[in-house]
This record gives sequence, C-alpha cells and structure tokens, in this order.
Amino acid sequence: MNRIQPTVSAENLTQFETLALDSSMNLADGHARQQLTSAQSKIVAELPDMWAEAIMRPVSEIEQEAAESFFGMLGQHSHPFAAGRTLSCYSSSLAMEILARSLVTTSDAIALLHPTFDNIPDILAGVGLKLIPVEEEQAHDDDLPAELLEQVGCVFITTPNNPTGRVMTEARLRRLAEQCAEYNVVLALDTSFRGFDTAAQFDHYAVLEASGCRWVVIEDTGKLWPTLELKIGWLARSANVDLPIEKIHSDILLGTSPLILLMVKRFSDDGADGGLAELHRTIAEHRALVRAELAGVPDISFVDEQARVSVERLHVGSRMGMDVWSAVRSQNLYVLPCQKFHWARPNEGERMLRLALSRNPSTLLAGAEVLRSALLDTPERHR
Amino acid sequence: MNRIQPTVSAENLTQFETLALDSSMNLADGHARQQLTSAQSKIVAELPDMWAEAIMRPVSEIEQEAAESFFGMLGQHSHPFAAGRTLSCYSSSLAMEILARSLVTTSDAIALLHPTFDNIPDILAGVGLKLIPVEEEQAHDDDLPAELLEQVGCVFITTPNNPTGRVMTEARLRRLAEQCAEYNVVLALDTSFRGFDTAAQFDHYAVLEASGCRWVVIEDTGKLWPTLELKIGWLARSANVDLPIEKIHSDILLGTSPLILLMVKRFSDDGADGGLAELHRTIAEHRALVRAELAGVPDISFVDEQARVSVERLHVGSRMGMDVWSAVRSQNLYVLPCQKFHWARPNEGERMLRLALSRNPSTLLAGAEVLRSALLDTPERHR
Repeated sequence: MNRIQPTVSAENLTQFETLALDSSMNLADGHARQQLTSAQSKIVAELPDMWAEAIMRPVSEIEQEAAESFFGMLGQHSHPFAAGRTLSCYSSSLAMEILARSLVTTSDAIALLHPTFDNIPDILAGVGLKLIPVEEEQAHDDDLPAELLEQVGCVFITTPNNPTGRVMTEARLRRLAEQCAEYNVVLALDTSFRGFDTAAQFDHYAVLEASGCRWVVIEDTGKLWPTLELKIGWLARSANVDLPIEKIHSDILLGTSPLILLMVKRFSDDGADGGLAELHRTIAEHRALVRAELAGVPDISFVDEQARVSVERLHVGSRMGMDVWSAVRSQNLYVLPCQKFHWARPNEGERMLRLALSRNPSTLLAGAEVLRSALLDTPERHR
Repeated sequence: MNRIQPTVSAENLTQFETLALDSSMNLADGHARQQLTSAQSKIVAELPDMWAEAIMRPVSEIEQEAAESFFGMLGQHSHPFAAGRTLSCYSSSLAMEILARSLVTTSDAIALLHPTFDNIPDILAGVGLKLIPVEEEQAHDDDLPAELLEQVGCVFITTPNNPTGRVMTEARLRRLAEQCAEYNVVLALDTSFRGFDTAAQFDHYAVLEASGCRWVVIEDTGKLWPTLELKIGWLARSANVDLPIEKIHSDILLGTSPLILLMVKRFSDDGADGGLAELHRTIAEHRALVRAELAGVPDISFVDEQARVSVERLHVGSRMGMDVWSAVRSQNLYVLPCQKFHWARPNEGERMLRLALSRNPSTLLAGAEVLRSALLDTPERHR
C-alpha cells in the first residue's frame, strides 16, 4: 500500500471534477450523465425541427414557455417571469457571478451556508465580499443571530444543499425570510438541486413574496437531465431587491439560446408528465445500488440518510478521504474529496467523499466495486 | 414631425439590442441572423447524430478538434490549445468577465481602445478597474506613451474593432506587443469579429509569442454563423501571463457543451472549405445593398470605408442619431445609436448609428427603406 499522496494541483472542486472528465468512471461532478430516457431521446431526435421553430418565433415567447414549463414542473407557480423579473443565463454559476457582482455594489459581507459547493464562496469572495459562515444546523434549526444579520447585506442558502441534500422546510424558509425582511438583508437561494426532492418543491416564491423581504433565487435546469451542458440558469428577483442585476446581466449576455429554451420546455413538459417521477426512482435505485455494493465494509457510513439529490456523501471512518481518493484514482475512478465543501474549516470534510449518482448503473457498479476494494485496503489515519 | 424624444431606459448597448429582439426589423445586435447556407443546414440536420457522438467520445478530444478547426480556419496556427492554454467559455463576454476578474487581482487600471462596444468598459469598470482611453488613431498609428504604460496593468484592443471594423496590422501588433513586453503590461485582444476580415487573419499568436509579452486573446465563434446563440468564446493566454485565469474560469464553469463544440468543428470545417469566403461575399453584398438603398440621401456618410465586419456605421450628418433612432423605432426598425461605443466621451457618437448586416437581404432592404424615409424627414439639430 503506497501511502504517499500524489501531487494534486486542483485548487477547487471543479478542478477535481476536470481531472475526471475523460475517465470512464467519473463519479466526480454533479452534472447529469445517465442515459436519456426514451421520451427524452425522442426530443433530441427533434432538435432540427426545434431549430426551425426557433428561427420562426419571437425569442421572448419561447423563453416564457420554457420558464412556465420548468417552474411549473417544480411547483414554483408564483415565479416572477411574467413580471419581468426572471433572467435566463447560460448556467447557474453565471447567475451566481452576476448576483455576486451585484451584491458587492452595496454590501461588503455575506452570510453563507456551511458547508456548500465551493464555487459559491469562491465567486462571492472573488468579487471582494467577506464571507461569514452559517452552519447548516443553525440555518435549519434556529433564528439567525441579530449581530450576524446586522453585519451582512445578504444571507445565501443552498436548498437542497450540495453536498448534504438537506432541504429547508417551508416553515424555516418563512421565518428566515421574515428575519431578512426585518433586517433589510437580501435572502438569496440556490435551488439548483430542487428537481430531485419533492420536499423542496413547495412554492418558494409565494413564501418569499409574503415575507416582504428582498430576495433572489437561482434555479438550474442543468443538474436534472443529461443534456450535454445545454442548460439554463435562471436568476429571479423580488421587485424591491434594489441591486443592479439587470444591468450586470446585460453586460454579460443579450440572451440564451432559443434552441436550448425550446429543449428545456420539452424536457420540462415530459418531466411534469411522469419524467420527474421516473428520475426520482432512478436516483433512488442508484443510491440503493451504491449502498448495497458497499454494504459490510467496516467503518464507513452514508451521512445523509434523507438525501434525495443526485449526489451522496460517504464517510470513510478513520481513513483519510484523500487516501481513498488517491487509491481509487489509480484505478481510474474519480470521486470528490469533501474538504473544499467545508470552505471555512476544510478539515471537517477530510473524512468524506462525494459520489455522483446521475450516471448509468454499470458505471456506478464498476465504481462502487473499485471503491469497496480501496476502502478495504486503506489504513486508518489519526491526526 | 415629433421632436420629443421618447423615454428610453436602456442603460447600455445590449439593452438597446434587447428592445429589438422581437422585432421583424432587428438591425441592432451584431449576432448572426442571416439564413443558414445549404451546407450549414445539413450540419443542423445532423444534430441528433452529433449528440450521440458527443456521448461516446471524451470531451477533451472533441474540444481539441473544435479548437484546431476554428483557429485553423482563421489562420491562427500558433494558438496554444495543445499547450493547455486555451479555455472554452459559454461566450466571449463570459471570457471577458473572467479576464476582468483576473486582471483586477493584480492591477487597478487598464488602457482600453476608444471607441469600442460598451460591455467591454462596463465589465472592466464593473470589477473595479480604472479605464484609460486609447484613441483608435493612436493605437493604430503611434507608440503608446510611456506614462500610459507605466500606470496600467493591461492594454486592451478590439481588432477588428466593433463598431469601426478597423484592423490592427501585423506591424502595429508586433510593435505594441514589444512595448507591452518592455513595460511588463498584459496585451489583451478581443478578436471576435476577425472571421469577417482576412486582414485580421495573420497568425496573431506567432506575433504575440515572438514579442515575449504577457498576452490574452478572446476569440468568438458567435458572430459568424446563425447558430441560435450556440457558440464558444475562447480565452487563450501566454505561458507567462501570471493571472488567475484558470482558477476563475473553474469557479464559473466545468466546461462547455460537447454538442456545441462538435457543431463549431463542423461549421469551421465548412468555413475552411469555402464557407468563410461565401460569408465574406454575403456581407459585402449586404453592405452594398444598404449603401445603394441609402444613396442620394443628403448629408449622410458611411464612415468606415474599409470595414469588412458584419456591422456598418452610418453618419447621419447634422441630424441627431437618437432622433433617427426614435423615428425608425416608431416603424418597428431597430438600429444602434452610437454614443455608448464612445464610452469616454459619448457625444462623439451622437450623430452615428450602427446597422447590423448579418441579416437576410429582405430584412435589410425593408430596414433601409424605413431608414431612408426617416433620414429624409429628420431635421438638423445643432448643439
């Protein structure tokens, strides 16, 4: 057993994901890479017809249909597209960049969920915002402290969270929104993974609007369906948000592709017509498959028992996550080490790995076998 | 004749372009909206097959082929893709945002061509950089002053320029790169419109590399072909650039779509095989069509006699550009008023309009007729 760690130059989780892109056993990134369903394949076969349709029709009409279908599929009936407050972006991360650039014009600090995917803190810090961690337990269980709300311009929550899958309940969202309204703090939500969990599909926009708080929501079509990075990130905002979001959006893009918007509409309509339920069954089967394959390995656990999202955290017990990561990498399997999710205190993630579930079962099975054998071979390490 | 200006809330050129998106006479944005050629239509018909291909192949291989074909078509044989220094982005404006965020980590000021499309100064200023204008004549005719180069971290040049179409010659680029090397200033080029002008297709990367300067180049597939906003912005850099470009890129994206990359490869191969020459003929015909339709209108001129790019500036003489803009808008024709291109001194653009030429001839003809009649009716205005 070689315990020397290979040199890994990855500076963030995305660079860890990049290492995996050409591997046949890529369980690293959270992008959807499972097979198209037969209904989805039919939509793809019609892309040339959709191209012809996109040329003929006004793009604003296509965009509205895509938004209605996507937000409708997810139960977000009070979304503000018709009010002109939903902007389409090339991706949710670009929506994040636009939000960050907008926030820093009026704030110097932000309260951010901890842990969460590291490109959120990196983008926010990259534009110059000071980050104050809000522990997941605190965000879900208690009011936020007044002294925190007094020093930030925004509270940012990922729900369902990546990687934990934890969903903010309607009651907690309502209370948090009320607090944000009271302190005149923007409440920003990243709901990119909400499609996987019906618990995250209550009408968030109705709750946010009722609170009267200033709010922004980032939605994402990109995590659900294997659409080859053709996706839309939506950036929705309240009427009272008072941030230069529309101007900064227009500095970076005129609009998204009408072909992608038509495709999103079609995938959403199929989702509402049973496709989303089928996806939930698929992810549940994949989760069960991985857990079954690793059953009996001593000193491991699946940390997020309630998770429904397309990623799964594995606690590797007294092993070090990077030891396991290196061992499976030598077998061409890529997973994500979890330190960088814990952006304020990376050591809290050092004994966990994140596995992507939105893959074909054969890939998951092969990966889980490699992982099982690596776990059995990886020694304990105490700090 | 109503001389009262309507309220126009557009804050930048892109918002002026947005006003035009649903109009049947949109001569505002510089995106390609002409008909697909028959060769291009065949490629679009094969999108479902390309989707299947994209699933099967490693994305890095697809990306390399797209880069080789696109840069090769444009004569950029020394481009650094193989060296791992060319990143694909969703668009050239996103590449611009990543560059701006990288520059501001080490610089507080930048020298920027004047005039140029306003999202470049807006993105640069938006991240906190101070902008110092470099007049187009100066950039093309003289060495830059030492006192300018001593106070900036970067010199940014758009070539061919938007809206003027002016191309930096090989000799001038060489000298500018030498100056940037001497002062340790990054030379950044936006070459998004180079596909339209063979004068801009000498091997820029060979010139930049020979100078030893730190350089960045933004290339764009999005201006050439009517691909419904499916496009790639490339962000290429020198080995010595010493900016956190790769990290910031990975904060915002894992990668671009392999379907779009395959499409870019196919369009580029067709371009190299005669498609680009056909495009040049088409744009020249469209330019001639607009000039012919406006011939004989008193007190107007086409400012950029040598331009080959897909946009055309019209000087409206002693009229005000916004008067003409408002008059044609009332007939549902949209063009771009030019003030905002002159980001340092907007009044220099107030008697010019920019017309897009990458449209179908019928649209151009209808637009030119509306414009002709509006020009004949618009009074002189002296400040």
